[in-house]
Amino acid sequence: MRELTQVVDRISVFILDMDGVLYLGKTPIKGAAETIRWLRKRGKRIVFTTNSSAETRRAQARKLARMGIAARESEIITSGFVAALYLRKRSPRAKVYIVGEKGLRLEFERAGLKLVPYERAEEATHVVVGIDRKVNNKKLTGALRALLGGAKFIATNADATYPTEDGLLPGAGTMIGALEGCSGKKPSVVFGKPSPRMIKIALGILHSKPSKAAIVGDRLDTDIIAGKLAGVTTILVLSGVSTRQDIVKFRRMKIIPDFVIDGIKDLVHR
Amino acid sequence: MRELTQVVDRISVFILDMDGVLYLGKTPIKGAAETIRWLRKRGKRIVFTTNSSAETRRAQARKLARMGIAARESEIITSGFVAALYLRKRSPRAKVYIVGEKGLRLEFERAGLKLVPYERAEEATHVVVGIDRKVNNKKLTGALRALLGGAKFIATNADATYPTEDGLLPGAGTMIGALEGCSGKKPSVVFGKPSPRMIKIALGILHSKPSKAAIVGDRLDTDIIAGKLAGVTTILVLSGVSTRQDIVKFRRMKIIPDFVIDGIKDLVHR
Repeated sequence: MRELTQVVDRISVFILDMDGVLYLGKTPIKGAAETIRWLRKRGKRIVFTTNSSAETRRAQARKLARMGIAARESEIITSGFVAALYLRKRSPRAKVYIVGEKGLRLEFERAGLKLVPYERAEEATHVVVGIDRKVNNKKLTGALRALLGGAKFIATNADATYPTEDGLLPGAGTMIGALEGCSGKKPSVVFGKPSPRMIKIALGILHSKPSKAAIVGDRLDTDIIAGKLAGVTTILVLSGVSTRQDIVKFRRMKIIPDFVIDGIKDLVHR
Repeated sequence: MRELTQVVDRISVFILDMDGVLYLGKTPIKGAAETIRWLRKRGKRIVFTTNSSAETRRAQARKLARMGIAARESEIITSGFVAALYLRKRSPRAKVYIVGEKGLRLEFERAGLKLVPYERAEEATHVVVGIDRKVNNKKLTGALRALLGGAKFIATNADATYPTEDGLLPGAGTMIGALEGCSGKKPSVVFGKPSPRMIKIALGILHSKPSKAAIVGDRLDTDIIAGKLAGVTTILVLSGVSTRQDIVKFRRMKIIPDFVIDGIKDLVHR
């Protein structure tokens, strides 16, 4: 694939999805760490992105470090971080009721946003919803009260499920569905891919144009669509969720990645 | 309202909604117990119905007894009971994974149906979903596995919320939404009102025609619609959820109760 080597040489910003590209659950993908080092050596700038809001950027950096991948916190963009950034900019005085995990709460606290506890849920101006594997009726009740009280409904991401060694598990879409089911409302904003928001923020931080950037992701339905919407080069890896059959399926919908490779290590040449 | 007194005299089966008609949460509604006695004295047959699947019929009978209303278990129809009846008839060998409360599980066990635990969720032929105020990620994960494994998705009722002294709380619709959100599937059957199923089953048990029966309920969006669909006389009480403003709103949708009364005690005459 001579063309890919030329594109790799031309691109200066690599926006990498993590799960399915760099690791599968807790297992690193072969050659991932070496590829990151190779890209860095060539002066490429790297941004790590994830739809997950369960961990903070700091925790994600530590996770990468454990897999031998050096990453600064500032290079990591999560859907929770982007949601916090958005609210801090648009509604710095927001009172936020969160249905989500500890990492999401921390990200909002670090952004200086005010969190509202269950007891004062009706004071919330925004309900922010992400994956929550410790969901319970009380959390949902607080969110319902906030939404019925007029709070805006915001979701970090809408992934129905996420793949693990034990099969598919319920994702953030489960929490969105639960709150839609009781409140009758739908989220007004969703930050995770397939929205191009995370990619656009990455480009903004690095002052890069879409033409100089590529996304490397394992999902046609999120990473590749987001890349197309943001106007960057799209590279699908087959080491995660999407399969060759999916490529055929998505081609009918005119969603065609610019390049398809077996794994991230195929970016390396010479 | 001379016409109502004539209808009350003519009707032989009174299908009563409970919450909002006989009590509000834990507080009996004034005159409810006396009205039931008056109806019984006149030879009326009474069926108590509720969309809730949280309690068994037995528990509901005990609750009525505490409020001075004598009711036999056989006179009570809950959405959970109807769901169990349906499955016992259509799929007696069903393996059922339940997302719901203890009362729902008990109702299914009493119907002789086989329940499948989390560990064997993928063996389930049916997922039955009702209100679950002890919901957690594990329960949802089991249901997701069952649904992805091909189990049929059945809901006891679809109430988004239910009214309490503390305001609206998340209802069965919350659990339906959560499972729709992760599985991408929708329930194939919903038993609770506005479906006419509970009313039709009540008529079947009593061998009564719709023309000889009336439903007394506090909700236009469930009780009155179900009554219309079943072809029985519909009597709206204003002691619960629906208000006079709602009557105007629903009239535009051609949903018009045959009678509107302040409370169930207005059924009594002479």
